[in-house]
Amino acid sequence: MNIQTNILPTYEDMLAAHERIKPYIHRTPVLTSSYFNDLTGAELFFKCENFQKAGAFKVRGACNAVFGLTEEMAKKGVATHSSGNHALSLSYAAGRRGIPCHVVMPRTAPKAKKDAVRGYGGIITECEPSTSSREATFAEVQKETGAEFVHPYNDPRVIAGQGTCSKELMEQTDGLDAVIAPIGGGGMVSGTCLTLSTLAPEVKIYAAEPEQADDAYRSFKAGHIIADDAPVTIADGLKVPLKENTWHFVSTYVTDIFTASEQEIIDAMKLTWQRMKIVMEASCSVPLATIFKNPDVFRGKRVGVVITGGNVDLDTLPWIK
Amino acid sequence: MNIQTNILPTYEDMLAAHERIKPYIHRTPVLTSSYFNDLTGAELFFKCENFQKAGAFKVRGACNAVFGLTEEMAKKGVATHSSGNHALSLSYAAGRRGIPCHVVMPRTAPKAKKDAVRGYGGIITECEPSTSSREATFAEVQKETGAEFVHPYNDPRVIAGQGTCSKELMEQTDGLDAVIAPIGGGGMVSGTCLTLSTLAPEVKIYAAEPEQADDAYRSFKAGHIIADDAPVTIADGLKVPLKENTWHFVSTYVTDIFTASEQEIIDAMKLTWQRMKIVMEASCSVPLATIFKNPDVFRGKRVGVVITGGNVDLDTLPWIK
Repeated sequence: MNIQTNILPTYEDMLAAHERIKPYIHRTPVLTSSYFNDLTGAELFFKCENFQKAGAFKVRGACNAVFGLTEEMAKKGVATHSSGNHALSLSYAAGRRGIPCHVVMPRTAPKAKKDAVRGYGGIITECEPSTSSREATFAEVQKETGAEFVHPYNDPRVIAGQGTCSKELMEQTDGLDAVIAPIGGGGMVSGTCLTLSTLAPEVKIYAAEPEQADDAYRSFKAGHIIADDAPVTIADGLKVPLKENTWHFVSTYVTDIFTASEQEIIDAMKLTWQRMKIVMEASCSVPLATIFKNPDVFRGKRVGVVITGGNVDLDTLPWIK
Repeated sequence: MNIQTNILPTYEDMLAAHERIKPYIHRTPVLTSSYFNDLTGAELFFKCENFQKAGAFKVRGACNAVFGLTEEMAKKGVATHSSGNHALSLSYAAGRRGIPCHVVMPRTAPKAKKDAVRGYGGIITECEPSTSSREATFAEVQKETGAEFVHPYNDPRVIAGQGTCSKELMEQTDGLDAVIAPIGGGGMVSGTCLTLSTLAPEVKIYAAEPEQADDAYRSFKAGHIIADDAPVTIADGLKVPLKENTWHFVSTYVTDIFTASEQEIIDAMKLTWQRMKIVMEASCSVPLATIFKNPDVFRGKRVGVVITGGNVDLDTLPWIK
């Protein structure tokens, strides 16, 4: 039995999600940097989801999906296809509930990622690195196990879970003018829209995207979803396209989407590590890179910046050749 | 006019220091990691001075020295010889008070370090990379400027300032059994002894040192100061020897000193970056490396671990060849 994924989550769903997941997530800290404030002329508040359980905000949505299952559904476990933070997060959440988590991953995925998923108790089924093989393998796993599919971002339970991040951010700051987050499939941005459109509709919501994977930017300008085929960017969490639920939130509530080049992303990433002493993924530096490029939009404003995750391969840093 | 440096600071000096420096420092967060708790069987509380102003705990002592000067003394500025975090911190503190800071640095020091000192407003005078040249150059600078000498660790104002770190740590945790910090010249460990011997004398104090720069360990075992000539270690903040004031605290209040090899230090450093998502210096991972090596000492205990600084050259990480 799968829930209907084309139902939009409500503000009450987000509030319920926060109560449900609180025992399993960190209330991550909000850091500030006088260096970056001086540099941008804005007042920046970094919500550090790189310090989150399993190293990424995705654990919010994953926990909401897993702990919202009935006992009967939970017995059969959950399943997803992902080689990134959603796989880790869903494995972590399922482990905390003591139910199985099935993850379909391409056999070519890095060993470190597979090890990390297994470290959290995830059960991996390998597929060939193609969409057809992934879909066929996933269908088989789901048929065999009866596990509940939890989509990485288009699932309303996941969006409601991600929305808890900006609820905390508003509680931890004394009012904001804007929030900016990276956009890939749009789960974090949609959760932000869900929460702020009710809690603080005066706060402007911006999204930031790599130039080389700018499908959300082009969708936003065109007024309909444009999906890219296999974009290439260092910000590897941001390669996936919008889907109907996330498109709803993005097209309704986002003020603008900005883009940054690969070099701008890498420069902002290194500078953040250097000055803020935090380990974060390339995806997380896209918002800061776009703030540098659009100073007039942010100068004099109080801006929340979502640092989405910290699962980095420390052996290959993009500024070390 | 220089203050007498052979006067030991008191607990009241530390309390006064905390009031004095509060406007200029961060109350840094205490982070925990269920991963490291599982790994060690201890409950670890990481006091993150890598997030401190100027990137290191040394700003506490530097601010206490700078803001404790009379108006008359302050006019002539402060001076020190250091190529590390003390130089940065003293420059930052002097900048905040609007007085000059003279730093004698070897001309061979990395350009990045000189740029960082200048970035905080420090005035650099270069010397040859030898003790005699450094002392001669420093004497000249002091004679010309009349600036107040602030020693990196043997100065009672500096020790009182560093002691504010463990005061915060005790306020931020619900009781501890032990605190462990890296030891070089002994400024942080002495400040910890100063504070805890009055505030929480039941808390055991441990120090951690690189095997390849184990002069404090050997001093502790021998019962008198042993100074090494130019030790070589990746933990470059820990190469300097104890001096009379820090020796007093270390020999009186420290329970034990543990050592770790270069590889153990690097492994603990990488693992901390990976799991806690923080950028910290090699020196900071020596305590964790020694906790791994001495599990029986720490198992079942609540242990404060001082993460001393985060000023790392991101272009040359020790695990990337």
